Order: sequence, then C-alpha cells, then structure tokens
Amino acid sequence: MAEARARRRNGKRSGRRPEKETAPRAPYISRQIATYDILSAEGLDLIEDNANTILQETGMEFRGDPEILQIWRNAGADVKGERVRFEPGMCRGIIQASAPGEFVQHARNPQNNVIIGGSNTVLAPVWGPPFVHDLDQGRRYATLDDFHKLVKLHAMLPAVHHSGGVLCEPVDVPANKRHLDMLLAHIRFSDRPFFGALLGAERAQDSVEIAKILFGAEFVNDHCCLYAVSNTNAPLVLDSAMSGALKVYARNNQAVACTPWTLAGAMSPCTEAGTLAQVLAEALAVMALTQLIKPGAPCLFGCFATAISMQSGAPTFGNPEAGRMVLVAGQLARRLGVPLHTVGALTASKIPDAQALQESTYGLTMSVLAGANFINHACGWLEGGLVSGFEKSVIDADLCGKLSVFTQGMDLSDNAQAMDAIREVGPGEHFLASQHTLKNFATAFYRPLTADNNSFEQWKAEGSLDAARRANKIWKDLLARYEPPPIDPGVWEGLKEYVAKRKASLPDQPY
Amino acid sequence: MAEARARRRNGKRSGRRPEKETAPRAPYISRQIATYDILSAEGLDLIEDNANTILQETGMEFRGDPEILQIWRNAGADVKGERVRFEPGMCRGIIQASAPGEFVQHARNPQNNVIIGGSNTVLAPVWGPPFVHDLDQGRRYATLDDFHKLVKLHAMLPAVHHSGGVLCEPVDVPANKRHLDMLLAHIRFSDRPFFGALLGAERAQDSVEIAKILFGAEFVNDHCCLYAVSNTNAPLVLDSAMSGALKVYARNNQAVACTPWTLAGAMSPCTEAGTLAQVLAEALAVMALTQLIKPGAPCLFGCFATAISMQSGAPTFGNPEAGRMVLVAGQLARRLGVPLHTVGALTASKIPDAQALQESTYGLTMSVLAGANFINHACGWLEGGLVSGFEKSVIDADLCGKLSVFTQGMDLSDNAQAMDAIREVGPGEHFLASQHTLKNFATAFYRPLTADNNSFEQWKAEGSLDAARRANKIWKDLLARYEPPPIDPGVWEGLKEYVAKRKASLPDQPY
Repeated sequence: MAEARARRRNGKRSGRRPEKETAPRAPYISRQIATYDILSAEGLDLIEDNANTILQETGMEFRGDPEILQIWRNAGADVKGERVRFEPGMCRGIIQASAPGEFVQHARNPQNNVIIGGSNTVLAPVWGPPFVHDLDQGRRYATLDDFHKLVKLHAMLPAVHHSGGVLCEPVDVPANKRHLDMLLAHIRFSDRPFFGALLGAERAQDSVEIAKILFGAEFVNDHCCLYAVSNTNAPLVLDSAMSGALKVYARNNQAVACTPWTLAGAMSPCTEAGTLAQVLAEALAVMALTQLIKPGAPCLFGCFATAISMQSGAPTFGNPEAGRMVLVAGQLARRLGVPLHTVGALTASKIPDAQALQESTYGLTMSVLAGANFINHACGWLEGGLVSGFEKSVIDADLCGKLSVFTQGMDLSDNAQAMDAIREVGPGEHFLASQHTLKNFATAFYRPLTADNNSFEQWKAEGSLDAARRANKIWKDLLARYEPPPIDPGVWEGLKEYVAKRKASLPDQPY
Repeated sequence: MAEARARRRNGKRSGRRPEKETAPRAPYISRQIATYDILSAEGLDLIEDNANTILQETGMEFRGDPEILQIWRNAGADVKGERVRFEPGMCRGIIQASAPGEFVQHARNPQNNVIIGGSNTVLAPVWGPPFVHDLDQGRRYATLDDFHKLVKLHAMLPAVHHSGGVLCEPVDVPANKRHLDMLLAHIRFSDRPFFGALLGAERAQDSVEIAKILFGAEFVNDHCCLYAVSNTNAPLVLDSAMSGALKVYARNNQAVACTPWTLAGAMSPCTEAGTLAQVLAEALAVMALTQLIKPGAPCLFGCFATAISMQSGAPTFGNPEAGRMVLVAGQLARRLGVPLHTVGALTASKIPDAQALQESTYGLTMSVLAGANFINHACGWLEGGLVSGFEKSVIDADLCGKLSVFTQGMDLSDNAQAMDAIREVGPGEHFLASQHTLKNFATAFYRPLTADNNSFEQWKAEGSLDAARRANKIWKDLLARYEPPPIDPGVWEGLKEYVAKRKASLPDQPY
C-alpha cells in the first residue's frame, strides 16, 4: 500500500486522474471457466427439431429483395412468392459446410484486434439510442457532439473492447448521411474495431469503402474489418434493408451477426421454448444465407430475446426468462459450431438507478455465463434502448471489468494457495502485513471504478454521492484526459475526402 | 389482460394494493437447474488437502471454553493449551459419520416449513445491522419499532422464505435482553421459521426455551425449530460466545451454520485459493464439533468470504473474487455431503443506488448458482452490513423473486413449445391476440414488484421516481396491508410470561 500512496503523491497528473485503478486493458476476454449449460442434449434436440418444423411448414419471408429469393431458389429451397420453406437440416448443413467457428475482427491498431468465437468474449457498447442522458442535462435528443463524446468515453474504458456502432443517433445530421460521420468518428477517436452501418446496401457499401481506405482494399477482401448485425423482423421476416446490407457484408467477407430480435409475448410466443425455436429458425435461415452468398464469410448466431409485460405490453429487460433463453442460445450456438452474439446490460429504467443495475447486472452476467462471443450493449443502455447514458456507461463498464476478472477462473498456483502465509500468520492474527500480502497486494482483487467502499462518515464528507453522481465525475475526468490515437494523415485525408464526396452526392433526408 | 383489468377494477382494497403482482409464494426454492461448478475435482482436492494441512500443522484455537477442548481431547485431537490440531481427514470423517445432508426447519405454520439441503434454497433477510435506512428518515440507529416493522415487511415479501434473526439491532432495548424481544417479534408477526440468538450459551438457551413453549418441548427435542450461525474469528479461532451458543443448539438438535467469516487480505490471504483452504479448515473443525456434541444434529458448511480493498483496507462486496469463492464453496459442501450456507445481496453502498444493486445482484446470483441451501442477507443489506434498508429489502426481494423463477429451468412442455401458436400467427404478425397467448398470459413471465417498464412520458407523469422512491411507496403499502398471522393465545401468553420473567432476572446492559 506504501507504493500505491507514493504513486498517488507523485502522479504527474494526479489532479485529473481518478485515484482508483481501472481493470487492466485487454483486447478481449479469453474465458478460463466453463459455460453454464441449463438444457440437456435432448432439450436442445427438441428446440432444433421445432425450429426445423417451423422452417419447413411455415418458412420465412424475405421481403422486397428478389435477389435473395433467387439465391434460395438456386440452393434448392421451396420459394413461393416471398415465402421460403426449407427441408429439415438444410440450413444447418449449409452453415456447417463453411461458416467459421471463430475469426479475427481487425482494428486499425492491431493490438486491439479481437478474436470472435471459441472461448473468447468481446464487449461492445450500447447501440442505437436516439436520446442521450446525463445528470447535468437530463434526457435529450442526441447530437454528433454527443456521439463524439461517447466514442471518446468508451475508448477510455479499459473493460470495453469494441468501439461499437450507433452509440447514439446523431439526429442533428441528416438520417442518410449520419453513418458516414459515425464511421469517421469511430476511426478518428478510437483505434478499436467498429461496426459497419446496418441498414441498407448503400450504407453498407459506404462502410466497406471506408474500411478499404483505412485498411487497404486487398486487406479488406480477405480480412474481417467490419462487424454488422442483421435483425429479423420477428416473427419470420427479413426485410430488404437488412438483407441489402447483409449481402454487401457477406460478399465482402465482413462479419454479420444474424440476430432475431424478439419480445416474447408480442413477436414470438409468450414461452421460452417457443421463442427459442422461432429464434433458432430465423437465425439458421439468415446464417445460411450469408454462407450461400459467400461461403466462409464470418457469421454469428445472434440472440436478442426478452419479454413484454403481459400487463402493459411494455418491453421488459433483465427478466429471468431472458437469462434462461440466452444460456440456451449459447448451447445451441456451440453445437452448431458458430460464435454467439448476445446483448448485455439491458434495462427499462430511465435513469442509472437500482432498477437499471439490477436488470443490467443480471443480464450481462447471464450473457457471460452463456459463453457469448460478442456482447452488444454491454454498457450504456437505458430505457429499453431509447437512451444512451453517460453515467450508465461508466457504471456498466465497471461491471464489465468485474465479469472479465470473474471469467479468469480461480488461480491455484503455489502463490495463490498461500500456505506459507497461513503458517506465518496463525490463529487470531491478521494478514495485512504478511510477506504474502506485501508481495501480492498490488494485483490482488479487482478494483472497481465507481464503487464507494469508504466509511459512511467519509462518504458523507465527500458529498453523499450516489453511484450515478460519482460516475458523472468519472466520465468528465475521462473525457478531460482523452487523447486521440495517432492516425496516418494521408489515410485520414482520404477518409474525409470520401465522406465529403458521398455527402455532396446525397440529398438531405431528415428521417 | 382483460382479466387483470377486471381484477384491478373490482379489487375491494384496490386503493391500498399495488397494481403489480408479486412472485408466487413458496416456502423455499426447489432448484430445477444444475449448479455452476468452476473447479475441477483436482482443484477441490488441492483445496481440501491444504485445509487438512492447516488443521494438522497450524490447527485452530478454541478460546475461553475448556469444555470444547475436552470434547476435542476425547475425540483424539491434539490439544495444547487452547490450540487444537487434527489428523488429516479426522474432521471429514466425523462429519460424514452423522451430519445430515438435508433437514427440515419447522415454522409455527407448517406450510412455511423449509427443507434445508439437497437442491433446495431458502432465502433469509439481512442479519445484524445497528442502523436502519429509509428515504424518509435517512440513516439512524435502529429501534425495536424498526425491528417490528422489518419483521412485518419481510413477512409480506413472498420471495423471502425465512423470518431471519437480527433484522436490525434494537438499540433502545438493553443489549442483554434484546434477543428476547426479537424472538417474540418473529413469533408474533411472522409464521415463518426464524433464527435463534447467536451469541452466548445463555441467549441460545433462551431461544431453545422459547422454541419449546412455541412448538412443545418434546417436538423441539427431535425437530429443528431454530437456525443459528456460528462465526469463526478468522483466522482459525472460535471464541466462547460462539462455542457457548453452538453447544446449546447442537445438544438440542437445532441447526448450526458453521460459517467462517473472512475478509480476504485481512483475515485470510489475499488470494482465493488460500482463503478457501482456510475457510474449509475452519468449517470442517466447527462442523465436526457439532457432530461430536450431538451426532446427527443439523449443521451447514457456511461461507462468508469477501475481500478488502487493498488500497484502503475497507471491506468490499459483490467483487468477482467473492463470486468465484462461493461457487467453489458450493462444490466443497456437496462433496462433503452437507448443506451450504452463504450470503446474498451484499453491498458497501450507503444507499439503494446503482452500486448497491450491481453488487447485490452479482452476489445473490452467484450464491444461487453455487447451489446454496440457505442464503442469509438475501435482502435488505446496505453499507457492509451496518445498515438494514427498508427500500433495499423491497428492491432485493424483487431480485429474490426473479432468481427463484430462474432456478425453475426451462419448461419444455407442449404448451411451452407453442408450435401451434407459431403456425397460427405466421410471418410478420403478432402473438398478442393468439389463442396461446390468451391461454398463458396470466402466468407468463415474472412480474417484478419495483421495476418501471412504462414509457418515459408515463414515468415522468408519475413523478420521475427512481427505484428507491418506488420501493418507498411499496414498503409503506405492504406495512399498511399487513395483518399478523393467528397465534394460539395460550402459547402467546406463555411466551410473554417467559420473556417477562427472564427480563426481570437480568440487569440492564446497554452494550
């Protein structure tokens, strides 16, 4: 502890640096503990049999995209109008013939490359909210300035591995041009991997072109540099905005998380086994589609399954049913041999309060136990995904760090067994000054960023701040300390030029 | 949903009853899912080998209780002064010869009897705080009035199974008489099982005498009617206050949770494997002691292991290390064949905020995954156990309900598979009005007590309340609706008479 004190005293930037250490930076989690499996092989068979029955009897609709229908016809599926039906096992066979079990998503800083699949887990921030929330300004429509701040803030959170995508919707930029500004911001303010735009072939193509400028066209051809999600319109529909983007990414060998998004009770049956059969059916069809477009293109089994309130119809998050469903989704993905994409710290709460962290902690923990390989919304989500919260991101990132440590399993080395320490100290004495403690204190135990473990008196003297108020100070401090990572000036000019040209070629569309 | 509306409209006490349903009442959780095991058999062997080495080389001190030392001498242990050393395997052998793998703790209402052990989990409220906290009066010393309110409040929370013990310390009652008032309150205001007093032979004997009046002397002789915890003074000490009570309970066939209480880094090594070896050593010795006193008396392997902050020395809760330790404790208890006692919703937070529920949710979830058979402090704990929180209890009880549902595993019945619903609805339609939904909506999905899933606008119109503010309304509403369970007037008179006599015989001791 003397060392810690000395560091604090001598720290050159001690005025701006938080006293507490954060989690050690790692590009992704390499899990050392088992996944938590709650269904038997027979239970998994039952769900997959039902998924096959759904695909065979009801099938799936691919709306507004004749090319997709032709791809299915060529593959031997039964296509009637926009409805496509599949023989049992057909999609599984297509997926297993070529879909990779794991792959690398590249970052412009290779130290931040992530391995997606196997026993690895990548944590990404919140995706999609039109609003932002912080304690100073409350809830408001998001702007590009908020977006920039959020990219920078997440880049400063060591337990997050991915720069993400739509950290918030910058509604002050025309809707059809936002994706360009967001891609530029991820590239300029972070050197972690990032998302491609999700909606429509045109924006996906922009994402690929931008990746080619950043990584080099040849490199992009056979390396995954973009990550995208393709959401079904549950039940059993994929629309052209999604299939359009999916085609672009798959053809360019970029990753697509094939993610049925469902609120059980509204968009799927109000039961878990029924919902999972539908989720699996949709995911099988969409994953198979990526492989038909480009065999070997990285794809993931995505699961975003939660429930509505049967009293009000409102979406609910962090419910016990969602936890069970994500655990089973993990089992289904593993036996299929593809990586699992899930969602993390979800909540319906409007503010970063006790409800928010009860729901988020349960949800993120379940996704980690499920062995998810990519967890979207691992931090920052509020109000059912309508709001991106600055304080919420900081508090959640602490949970990300905690769970990262948890996944490393228990150290059983001689040092960890500490038998000499127990011999040295003996009954009734304390370990604070033991040789073993002095040797290990600097690395012992996860150090949370936001938790206050001080006495009541000290907490009161410091203003009786709740976790959200402390997080408010932390994100401001992190932004104050933020420095952009270096970027090749020629590449940056090329990116800006591409975006300027594209913007000039597009009419302004507010929505 | 029509039915729910009708019930609300016609509810006779609708003005006082919360709209939201709570978890269905059950006397305990009967787990339908696997425990989550993170160590291999070799890892468990290593920890138990180390525990044996500790017991053999260092041994344990039993302070101030010559009778205990004699019991050990008679059993063949090596006793020098107050230090007792044990041959490897000695304690395990004693425990396995007679300790029950599961047992019933009786409640005065037999419908509330709990089975402790096997795949069952009993959730009990917070134990021991000298302070209480609510949003109206803040943090203050607890009184007997608070104690009464807390017994009543917890009796109204369906996801909690046990009335507990020292829900708070009623500091307005002399320290040596409080246990009598607390026992009376548990018996009068709840018909669930409850704790016996923990400290000292005299108070334990009072607890047994009171149980005999309530249940009948003969019944108590061979049925467990009291539950008690025996905490070691880690490292490796059991003091006479604890051993005095332990002797009384064991002799009377009442349950003792043999619970090393340790803050890793201070009271045990700053590593998990070292801490667990010490915890197991202490628990083995104390459990064996109960069996030497009375073979077959119910005992539990208790684990309350968390870590200090290595920066400040403050206790921390809900840390990743505590989660791993409780999971391994579960594995150690199961291979020993005894029930596991753990701790639940712990936090260092002073208030029911995001920190509180992040730490508590993680901790309680880990205890549930560990297969704990009795989880103490499953609700209401704040500030490292110094404070019992009214709002915290309500928010935590919601988590208890959620995890109870989680443990029931996934329903794979025909109804849950919902294949007809998926056939009926088809692509792009919704399930809200399907036959399956109409049939199942009343029981589908856990209904939280405190969560707000409404729109931002509705939430704002209702006062922009955070979870703690909503919980404040809920606990007041629950107390307003509380009605004491019936009790035999003769028994009640007998209990009051015993307590009055005992109180008159004791001098007032403020501390």
